[in-house]
Amino acid sequence: MRARRRDPHRAGTSGQTARSTRYRSLINPFEPVRVFSDDQVESLHLAALAMLERQGMRVLSPRGRAALASAGAKVDESSQMVHLDPGLVTAALATVPPEVNLIARNPLRSSRVGGRHVVFAPVAGPPNASDLQRGKRSGSIADFRDFVRLAQAFDVIHVLAQMVEPQDVAVSERHLETTLAQLTLGDKVPGFYCRGEAQLADCFAMARIAHGIDEATFRREPICYTICNTNSPLQLDVPMTDGIIDFAANGQLVIVTPFTLAGAMAPITIAGALTLAHAEALFGITLAQIIRPGAPVMYGSFTSNVDMKSGSPAFGTPEYTKAAFGAGQLARRIGVPWRCSSATAANAADAQAAYESQMSLWGALLGGCNFVLHAAGWLEGGLTASFEKFILDVEMLQMFAEIFQPLPASTEDIGIEAVAEAGPGGHFFATAHTMQRYRDAFYIPLVSDWRNFGAWSDAGAKTATERASSLWRDTLVSFQPPAMDPGVHQALTEFVERRRGEGGAPPVS
Amino acid sequence: MRARRRDPHRAGTSGQTARSTRYRSLINPFEPVRVFSDDQVESLHLAALAMLERQGMRVLSPRGRAALASAGAKVDESSQMVHLDPGLVTAALATVPPEVNLIARNPLRSSRVGGRHVVFAPVAGPPNASDLQRGKRSGSIADFRDFVRLAQAFDVIHVLAQMVEPQDVAVSERHLETTLAQLTLGDKVPGFYCRGEAQLADCFAMARIAHGIDEATFRREPICYTICNTNSPLQLDVPMTDGIIDFAANGQLVIVTPFTLAGAMAPITIAGALTLAHAEALFGITLAQIIRPGAPVMYGSFTSNVDMKSGSPAFGTPEYTKAAFGAGQLARRIGVPWRCSSATAANAADAQAAYESQMSLWGALLGGCNFVLHAAGWLEGGLTASFEKFILDVEMLQMFAEIFQPLPASTEDIGIEAVAEAGPGGHFFATAHTMQRYRDAFYIPLVSDWRNFGAWSDAGAKTATERASSLWRDTLVSFQPPAMDPGVHQALTEFVERRRGEGGAPPVS
Repeated sequence: MRARRRDPHRAGTSGQTARSTRYRSLINPFEPVRVFSDDQVESLHLAALAMLERQGMRVLSPRGRAALASAGAKVDESSQMVHLDPGLVTAALATVPPEVNLIARNPLRSSRVGGRHVVFAPVAGPPNASDLQRGKRSGSIADFRDFVRLAQAFDVIHVLAQMVEPQDVAVSERHLETTLAQLTLGDKVPGFYCRGEAQLADCFAMARIAHGIDEATFRREPICYTICNTNSPLQLDVPMTDGIIDFAANGQLVIVTPFTLAGAMAPITIAGALTLAHAEALFGITLAQIIRPGAPVMYGSFTSNVDMKSGSPAFGTPEYTKAAFGAGQLARRIGVPWRCSSATAANAADAQAAYESQMSLWGALLGGCNFVLHAAGWLEGGLTASFEKFILDVEMLQMFAEIFQPLPASTEDIGIEAVAEAGPGGHFFATAHTMQRYRDAFYIPLVSDWRNFGAWSDAGAKTATERASSLWRDTLVSFQPPAMDPGVHQALTEFVERRRGEGGAPPVS
Repeated sequence: MRARRRDPHRAGTSGQTARSTRYRSLINPFEPVRVFSDDQVESLHLAALAMLERQGMRVLSPRGRAALASAGAKVDESSQMVHLDPGLVTAALATVPPEVNLIARNPLRSSRVGGRHVVFAPVAGPPNASDLQRGKRSGSIADFRDFVRLAQAFDVIHVLAQMVEPQDVAVSERHLETTLAQLTLGDKVPGFYCRGEAQLADCFAMARIAHGIDEATFRREPICYTICNTNSPLQLDVPMTDGIIDFAANGQLVIVTPFTLAGAMAPITIAGALTLAHAEALFGITLAQIIRPGAPVMYGSFTSNVDMKSGSPAFGTPEYTKAAFGAGQLARRIGVPWRCSSATAANAADAQAAYESQMSLWGALLGGCNFVLHAAGWLEGGLTASFEKFILDVEMLQMFAEIFQPLPASTEDIGIEAVAEAGPGGHFFATAHTMQRYRDAFYIPLVSDWRNFGAWSDAGAKTATERASSLWRDTLVSFQPPAMDPGVHQALTEFVERRRGEGGAPPVS
């Protein structure tokens, strides 16, 4: 059944240089930064275990409570509270795979999750879209498709996602349209929402059609992923609980991510917010392993702080960066691949958006993160997917991809003879050492403009954000969808048509 | 003679919160990032020593060549080439102080250099100034004074610098005006240019007047600093050589900084550019220790790459960040405090300026840098000092200062009882744990705007750069110069008047 295409020539059709193919598979060479001592990590971990045992977690889904009860959790049906014995959590952690292959329909786009591997995923979830020309508006299916095209076009974006909410599509058909767009306009791994069993059954069926695989094959290796957010503090709603169950049962990747804003839905200290998040992530991971030992899961963290004057959430703050370092330590403590985010509270794709996002990215990447969600396009605290921000983020991601590359330092690389050739006060433009290397010596930026002030002024004195505006438009104009067997394409379209005719599937909330 | 003022009430007069006083003395808690193996570091170091022994360095100053010859260096007067035996370099490194106190006239503004201490210095050297309203123009003494005021106003800026070139002041009097501005509008450690012995004698005399100290006291501890750039490759001009000599002889801090652009004035590989820079820095440091064993020196690095199509220098690139990590390793190899930079090639204080500068800052700070020059205000490859960029940079520096603060993680900090108090699905705004901590829980940003889109739009939808424009103006309006004894102020003014009457001192080039 599984007959995946192997055509390397599809690479680089979107105006990128061959250099960018290096960005498809990233290894982080740096030792993770630590903000906690080992003893502190242990005390946070133990506090989280104690929280799950004594306070427990409210699980709104009867399926979830039943599964947990059958595995030995203490369940109070009247209060819906579920208490986990630390032994149950420890046993569950023992079956989590430390690394997972996420299989794309184009094998060149498959990604490894865990270890020192790094996966960049685009923004997920904003209800709105924005760009410089059209401003902010409700997300549409046209915006959704454009974001899939952009995510597909850049090698440094490794998987797809629900990048914007297409509010012009009925909620019971939205999952069909977004899945169709991801599977036909991209050949990278899609990300699905958990809005009930019926919608997920559709998404999984379409993914199998795209891959040309049967159910048994589907259950063996993950070809899609989802994010399941807990409802901090200490609550798991129906669609999230059932999503963990359905993804785990099918061997698909589920990323359990508490969203803990210190001072709002979590204790005001970063240590407290991380401990609560740790407890909730442990809970979701335990549920997944109960459903299917060995199910691919990730430890998601999204801890930030709020402005204590207004209650507004903030992102890419110093506290956010330190929380990321700490979350990475907790993820390594339990040996589970770790997902983090790039985020900003900025309302425009401006300098604040850039510096807050980059603060997040360093927190994630020097924290040892395996999967960075919202890595491109996130704006306005996640309420808007911005086209210009997407390009600015891709530039930063490409820079990180370059920073990850080793620095050659052999005697030939040092080139002491080139120094002799240039001579005191000379230059190196024409030395043999330079001539051998100049074509591919350095990263060539996407949006950064290194021209001098005069040349830049003559070209219109455009800011990086204005240049990004041209770049995403150009990328869309030159976009070529990845090849797909016409029969597969037709089968997907027919599936969507049939399910629309049947009324689709209403979301569960 | 030395009677420094000790008035803590001068702190925080520029509209900053008490929180910012934490930023005055920074300790970097993170283990430095490594891009080279220990073996690679050793091979770069040995290659640099071999370069100094075999190729040697051209020294244009007869004073410099004489000093080096008398210490045992092999000098060829006809070619001006000076060759250093590795033993001479090793002996010089043995006398470098690993840490130094930079004494400010206000003791609260003194800075420790070396170890895990971090000093942020503002931009130095741009010929131009710019701001949103007035655009780019030649630097003036009015701009210079405004930049001193801004550098003085923010606690996270630890020392002053020659922040912009006041082109409206005659070159033979410029050093008098810039020194007067630094000493009277600020009470932090000033930075001087090395443009010949006569100018330096004036600067040193004025610094002594400001501190109320005699020459013997002056020579005991550094109260000012300078940057001496080599003329890469392998050349030291007259003012830089003589500057190293005069600063070292007077026990003042000299930061020897090769400016090595890979592919232009240095080998095209980062390993090669760093090796050349290392050789040149070793050379300058050796000269300083020959002049005065134990003279306070720093190892400066400024290695970046050029755009190989246009030859334009680039900054804050991936190569720049990796070069910073590598330079830090080389500095630690020789045990000398390390200076690095924050830089960008952007022509506007936009998203590019923010992300390139932050890439530089992470390279410096995770590389273990002790002194970050150009940390605020640098724009356009160093050709312009930007007022808005200054504010954006201060925000980023404050964020780093916060990231350096420890993360409390005691049982009380974790606050497991707050989680019980909030309950499943509850919130933490009113828990006792929150109420005890909310006032000072989080960093309060300078320019970042965390309001929601509606509130931000209603307030004019201003970008971070536009908000920065208001912020630097407001800072100047509320600026109060630090207290100074009227007699000292008069003595400085009279010194400047007298020296102007004498024609000042022409710069040496």
